[in-house]
Amino acid sequence: MIVDRRELEFVLFELLDVERISRQPRYSAFDRGTISQILDTAQQIAEEHFLPIAAEVDANEPQFIDGQVVLPESTAVALAAYADAGFFALPFAQEVGGLQAPWVLHTAVSGMFSCANTAVTNYAFLTIAAANLLDAFGSDDLKHRFLQPMLAGRWFGTMCLSEPQAGSSLGDICTTATPGHDGFYRIRGNKMWISGGEHEISGNIVHMILAKIPGGPAGTKGISLFLVPKRRVEKDGSLGLGNNIALVGLNHKMGQRGTTNCLLNFGEGGDCLGYLVGEPHRGIEYMFHMMNEARIGVGHASVMSALGGYLYSADYARTRLQGRLANQKDPQSPQVPIIKHADVRRMLMAQKAAVEGAQALCLYCATLVDELATEEGPEQRKWLEKMLGLLTPVVKSWPSEHCLEANKWAIQVLGGYGYTRDYPVERFYRDNRLNHIHEGTFGIQGADLLGRKVNGDGGQTLQRFIELMRETISQAEKQGQLQKEAAQLDACLTDLSETTRILLDCTESARRMANATLYLDAFGHVVIAWMWLRQALVAAKQVSAAGLSDAEQDFYDGKIVACRYFYGYELPLARAQLSVCASLDTTCLDASEAVFGG
Amino acid sequence: MIVDRRELEFVLFELLDVERISRQPRYSAFDRGTISQILDTAQQIAEEHFLPIAAEVDANEPQFIDGQVVLPESTAVALAAYADAGFFALPFAQEVGGLQAPWVLHTAVSGMFSCANTAVTNYAFLTIAAANLLDAFGSDDLKHRFLQPMLAGRWFGTMCLSEPQAGSSLGDICTTATPGHDGFYRIRGNKMWISGGEHEISGNIVHMILAKIPGGPAGTKGISLFLVPKRRVEKDGSLGLGNNIALVGLNHKMGQRGTTNCLLNFGEGGDCLGYLVGEPHRGIEYMFHMMNEARIGVGHASVMSALGGYLYSADYARTRLQGRLANQKDPQSPQVPIIKHADVRRMLMAQKAAVEGAQALCLYCATLVDELATEEGPEQRKWLEKMLGLLTPVVKSWPSEHCLEANKWAIQVLGGYGYTRDYPVERFYRDNRLNHIHEGTFGIQGADLLGRKVNGDGGQTLQRFIELMRETISQAEKQGQLQKEAAQLDACLTDLSETTRILLDCTESARRMANATLYLDAFGHVVIAWMWLRQALVAAKQVSAAGLSDAEQDFYDGKIVACRYFYGYELPLARAQLSVCASLDTTCLDASEAVFGG
Repeated sequence: MIVDRRELEFVLFELLDVERISRQPRYSAFDRGTISQILDTAQQIAEEHFLPIAAEVDANEPQFIDGQVVLPESTAVALAAYADAGFFALPFAQEVGGLQAPWVLHTAVSGMFSCANTAVTNYAFLTIAAANLLDAFGSDDLKHRFLQPMLAGRWFGTMCLSEPQAGSSLGDICTTATPGHDGFYRIRGNKMWISGGEHEISGNIVHMILAKIPGGPAGTKGISLFLVPKRRVEKDGSLGLGNNIALVGLNHKMGQRGTTNCLLNFGEGGDCLGYLVGEPHRGIEYMFHMMNEARIGVGHASVMSALGGYLYSADYARTRLQGRLANQKDPQSPQVPIIKHADVRRMLMAQKAAVEGAQALCLYCATLVDELATEEGPEQRKWLEKMLGLLTPVVKSWPSEHCLEANKWAIQVLGGYGYTRDYPVERFYRDNRLNHIHEGTFGIQGADLLGRKVNGDGGQTLQRFIELMRETISQAEKQGQLQKEAAQLDACLTDLSETTRILLDCTESARRMANATLYLDAFGHVVIAWMWLRQALVAAKQVSAAGLSDAEQDFYDGKIVACRYFYGYELPLARAQLSVCASLDTTCLDASEAVFGG
Repeated sequence: MIVDRRELEFVLFELLDVERISRQPRYSAFDRGTISQILDTAQQIAEEHFLPIAAEVDANEPQFIDGQVVLPESTAVALAAYADAGFFALPFAQEVGGLQAPWVLHTAVSGMFSCANTAVTNYAFLTIAAANLLDAFGSDDLKHRFLQPMLAGRWFGTMCLSEPQAGSSLGDICTTATPGHDGFYRIRGNKMWISGGEHEISGNIVHMILAKIPGGPAGTKGISLFLVPKRRVEKDGSLGLGNNIALVGLNHKMGQRGTTNCLLNFGEGGDCLGYLVGEPHRGIEYMFHMMNEARIGVGHASVMSALGGYLYSADYARTRLQGRLANQKDPQSPQVPIIKHADVRRMLMAQKAAVEGAQALCLYCATLVDELATEEGPEQRKWLEKMLGLLTPVVKSWPSEHCLEANKWAIQVLGGYGYTRDYPVERFYRDNRLNHIHEGTFGIQGADLLGRKVNGDGGQTLQRFIELMRETISQAEKQGQLQKEAAQLDACLTDLSETTRILLDCTESARRMANATLYLDAFGHVVIAWMWLRQALVAAKQVSAAGLSDAEQDFYDGKIVACRYFYGYELPLARAQLSVCASLDTTCLDASEAVFGG
């Protein structure tokens, strides 16, 4: 199973009211019926072409043979089906040849593919990210030549940021782009960790690459963005010569193994021509502009790996017979399905709470992207940008921490079968481990949240966001069965406010930032708790309605129960973490390097 | 690196005073000098034969070719070196041909091999476990024929408990053992998850197998223990015919891939002869008797996988240059080693706290095994047995949860390199994931702790153990720099006592047990906190001594700092969990099966 459609429709239509977005002229082609049809199509293709080959591409990694990357043929077949359905073009504007769907729909669609097969979906994910960047900042000429083949899925794209010596620290990249008299830049350098960096499954590969123009400012301020195709492209769009990009080696990872991941050398074997995208020295700024969407995407992919594990383990728990309940004294009585055991339910509940809480957050953030795309009021736009900026480190990191934990529980539910490669749950776990690092590590996200997003405006955005969460609390206070949770969240928000005040009042920046990762993690818990209270509120209203079917009753009950679980079992951990942050503890900061072994 | 010898000597001699054990006549051959020599030998063999092949055996799993299991040749070479050094015989009594070393020394020795290469070490681990069982319950004749070749490492052993339909629920095994007139039993059935179950690297394989004698009691009370050799053994010890044990298939796991893991069929192709070990129907009791040592071993192997990751990532963090500190504004200033970043130190500290806390616990439990082997006073024996029983679920489960988490942080320290198979940290993580399930899952350990060990005697053993921990608190209260931690642990013990009282007062067993796994996890944190306070106490006394070298000063400082970290960052989480347990929350227990997706 790759999707719980009832759940998805709940989040899209009942929780987030996506039809509100469809009412905007930009998205008017996407009413509820159309959205459902598109989800049907996505589900069908994902189940037909992506899911069945997930184990195959995991077991048969890309190989480097005679200078070429060799992949299982099925990868190209799956991506062709994806392209034929128009999914590469889905979120792009009609004026550049896209279908102009809301980002939230694109996110939901991508999610099904990620859940079915995250490794193959990565090729599309990166192509869309690269196309997004090109669309936002490229000249009309560049768009004309490169964007359309990418939106058609004929050419794929990559993002080339890291280098062997510069990953988190992008200011230290060494790749150069030297301007020539012919208007091209000559690119020279090595790029590391390039997913989809080399293969033969698309007609061309369009690399969006960060490089420095010699003589520019030092550090991140001297970084520019270039489009560098694998094969050169003539003015008329036809393919020309190779562009002197050499595959130096493939990285072999523990998960997402079906995605080719490369160390590439640009320009050592001859001229490697690049096109400047936008203006010189603004590469980092452009990247940041696109990062919100990309980080929502990584967070959501993490949720989807956990969703796969959750659905599989729930299904397994209902059918696997093992053990008896405490009141079954007769050893010859039949064994019970393991879902009857409280601890198995706890492991399923932990997964449900993480997966459905985080899915709601990811799709909520995607609706903020859509609101930003249609909002015209400058004040509201500014607020939307700020809020999205605040939530971006959370949406990237919370799932990659806690949905990875969910994958751990999925394995545990299956017992010894769980870690066996005949079952998919260990693959989900391996796949998901990558999400905590790529597209900005946990530590980087913590620094972004506390250092830039919270401290950057003296906590104003956070305070306004806290007020927004308090509106939900006000509603919950009126719902008898959610009053306890309303009070818990309220107390948490008070803790969060006070902790933040203490941190911002700390004048030593190293001390303020010493526990930034913990702060991020705790803040994430608070945000997910908010998402759960919102879900439970919707459910509580429905549950009292007359004439509900048993299945609907169970569905809404499940929302309230999972909310209660999250508040009872998970939220207290966040308060403990906030308390560490508020103490301005410097145990780790002050620890001498010599105290560590090795 | 596979061991921090300074750390190991601290735990053995300064914390646990293992020389106290050496003073017992049984262990008098093992003075401090001898112990150090044996550790030197183990380290040398582990580094020479086990460590260099760890990646190889991970990448080249056992294969099933023409009815045989084919392994990398290096596995046999490594185990031959292990045998030649006498390590199979190390913990056994001299009267059966062993070296009669303390169990704590055997544990420390095994640890080095586990850290170097847990997959290959498993063959020895299982052989020693099987031999241990045979030694305790086998007849002289059986011991004469089978034990000596096992102690010499010529024959290997296995433990055959699980079947495809019965893993955690052993009472449901179907394998039968039918007595014949010749004194043999005919074994018939399938056994699943048999590590080391079939291979060609030892002269014979001695299976210790649980089976039911037809007509016996139902459930666990009808299970008996049998010795079933792969090849029959004549009275004179020479090898006879094959014993009709067929390899049905190999399991392919996410970790510990170098250990062959089998589904075996006993007796389908003809008579499969088994020898009854001990008395009929006492198989489970015998297994439980051996389980303390085996579970210490699994917990310790889990610590060792985490130690490998910790030492590797600490070393990496000292040499990898990336980023700058907040006060380095110049982007052209050199990058710093990442160990300078507070969040990297936090990740190293989290690993140190988990690894060194859990290692101390494992070796402490091993000393309890040794005390039990030499103690003659019946009262004290009973108390030692009770305490070891109480700690067994903790020593099995705490490392497999929190040292796995440590492995996660080791990957995180390495960034993208961390999840790449060119570096060992992702392998440690995959290897370690198994430990949370095999030899009794987390859930099983929770039920054992709360249901059997705590509730079984109305909490008496726990209360006495709490008093023991309070003795450490009394000492810490007199150490100025540990007063805060003493107060924290004291408050925690009060929480633990009260929570336990509430649980034991709950008359509905399902409700009492609903959060048993959380209770176990929180109790584990308390025990590890105690271990840390004990370590910090030793360090605090040393740190004030005159004439300490810088290295020694750093070492002891590290103990105090890590203790502080554990109390500041980790222990509060346990109190939050205890509070859930004390609330007798039944959210998961009561959740309808229908609320879960899938």
